[in-house]
Amino acid sequence: MSDRRTAILEAAATVIARRGVRGLRVEELAVEAGVSKALIYYHFEDRTGLLRRTLTFVNNRAERYTAEQSAVDATTDPGAATGAAPTSGPLRQLEQALLLELQDLPHVRENSTAWGELRASAVFDPELRGELALASVIWVREVADQLGEVRPTAPESALVASAERLTALLEGLSARWLSGILPLTDARTRMREAIGVEVAHLAGHTADRSADGTPTSPNKLD
Amino acid sequence: MSDRRTAILEAAATVIARRGVRGLRVEELAVEAGVSKALIYYHFEDRTGLLRRTLTFVNNRAERYTAEQSAVDATTDPGAATGAAPTSGPLRQLEQALLLELQDLPHVRENSTAWGELRASAVFDPELRGELALASVIWVREVADQLGEVRPTAPESALVASAERLTALLEGLSARWLSGILPLTDARTRMREAIGVEVAHLAGHTADRSADGTPTSPNKLD
Repeated sequence: MSDRRTAILEAAATVIARRGVRGLRVEELAVEAGVSKALIYYHFEDRTGLLRRTLTFVNNRAERYTAEQSAVDATTDPGAATGAAPTSGPLRQLEQALLLELQDLPHVRENSTAWGELRASAVFDPELRGELALASVIWVREVADQLGEVRPTAPESALVASAERLTALLEGLSARWLSGILPLTDARTRMREAIGVEVAHLAGHTADRSADGTPTSPNKLD
Repeated sequence: MSDRRTAILEAAATVIARRGVRGLRVEELAVEAGVSKALIYYHFEDRTGLLRRTLTFVNNRAERYTAEQSAVDATTDPGAATGAAPTSGPLRQLEQALLLELQDLPHVRENSTAWGELRASAVFDPELRGELALASVIWVREVADQLGEVRPTAPESALVASAERLTALLEGLSARWLSGILPLTDARTRMREAIGVEVAHLAGHTADRSADGTPTSPNKLD
């Protein structure tokens, strides 16, 4: 991806976080990105093309800072080095990945605000829905995989259902935090509790196992 | 409240659900409501005043159709008459109240779309936050009370935390449904499961009871 194309997408996220999608003017975006209006149209064709790419860009950026922080935690966490408390590893990773979106850091706040705005716009703009649906499916899949590491015997459908609830809850809590009606610490506490509640719920799905822990129904050949 | 004032608020909800808050033009609103622009300014002073009143109006309307449906259910539900399965009463009421917001009926879709838009606008418009915060507090309180009827021994703080999660989840699921990326039946299923998961979680808080079911800690006099 060219540097100037990236600069335009970064500027689009900034302007959307500042004024909302409907406050996005190509003139202001050009100034913010330090490029000409013509270059914006050259790269993105039209406003809808720009919004679609910005949605994917914002989503990828959230994944990137989540992944980077997980890598940092893995190298600095003493528990990870000693191998103590093995079951807490994947649960801690899941909590960290979801709680990273609820942080009062300028880039997190900007990214979450832009993401919330693009999501809200998709209600009125069906052309954004393809990107939004794809980003959501990928995110739900990742969270379901992380839940699966915490609860390896829970069935796939239960993992996906829990992941759909946790990600939708995070969007709901994030919107309340960003609109100033829920303090950040409360949003983080509610999210952490929700992860605990869902993980406990998924434990119930491991009941159909034999006493030695071998799953009785999955991998059945008949 | 005067008929014409109500007509303006109903028209504002309709126009916001059609074009979003930033698509709301006073000219279009005046045509939709069948009044003059001057009358709109007479009743609401300015755009912010109009949006604040519309937020409260949309919220009250959601409460009203929830309450009306509960009354209908109470008179038509054969289980309620026989008194069978007493514990299912408050749980069923809670489910119905929350699931009423996830229905493909024109007035529910319009009200939910307008509510989502006004919420999203509050991220950029601090003047809307007072009304939004008040509406949210009242809603959380109502859901916490309903949860308290299902789980009478759960502590207040746990009821409020569960109510905050359920209402934030409903907003997240509703946004996904309205933007067309989550089918309505899936949204309803996830919501119903979440209620079950939270109610099971709250049951854990009833553990500090004596064997005969008498609470040991609440109502203590020492």
